[in-house]
Amino acid sequence: MDTKQKTEEYGCPVARTADLISNKWTPLIIRDLARRQMRFSELERSLKGISPKTLSERLKRLEESAVIERTCYAEVPPRVEYQLTEKGHALLPIIDTMRDFGTVWLPDESC
Amino acid sequence: MDTKQKTEEYGCPVARTADLISNKWTPLIIRDLARRQMRFSELERSLKGISPKTLSERLKRLEESAVIERTCYAEVPPRVEYQLTEKGHALLPIIDTMRDFGTVWLPDESC
Repeated sequence: MDTKQKTEEYGCPVARTADLISNKWTPLIIRDLARRQMRFSELERSLKGISPKTLSERLKRLEESAVIERTCYAEVPPRVEYQLTEKGHALLPIIDTMRDFGTVWLPDESC
Repeated sequence: MDTKQKTEEYGCPVARTADLISNKWTPLIIRDLARRQMRFSELERSLKGISPKTLSERLKRLEESAVIERTCYAEVPPRVEYQLTEKGHALLPIIDTMRDFGTVWLPDESC
């Protein structure tokens, strides 16, 4: 959202949440991390079609917003994994209602 | 979403729903129409910062997806109003969970 809308719509909690998650990939990143903590390369494989640059930007934004946290394991080579925080887990009811809607109202036309 | 992702992620109902509503304005249009049917100019005033072109595109997409319907009243000048369909009403649990999350986890910093 641009600065103007941030100022004018930010009184609405729906708008604040939309600013955080309403983009092409973020709901799918949260969907994946709901299952287990994952490495960058695992997320990249799961989110078919995402570019490394976009995934990196989305993860950075989610980390800055305290929705996910990264843990660096001191191995050789170092292993970095991402997981949902308590705030991130609090997004799961949104993902669940999105799943419910899609299941009922948006049939999978690729089947 | 681009065609590649459509093909590869479309097996997931979360991805299909994200494709429909995960953009800057759509959740806010649905939030507004949840209250009552509205005219274009009323939506434009409510969604501060949206351009007429963007609002028009979003409404067209939602109409094509059977989430909203437009009614044209034979007045002079003709009056056109938008309202949620049954499918549109089925999106309200998503808006409600977004509102709940925003209220608890995203304090309004403009206050």
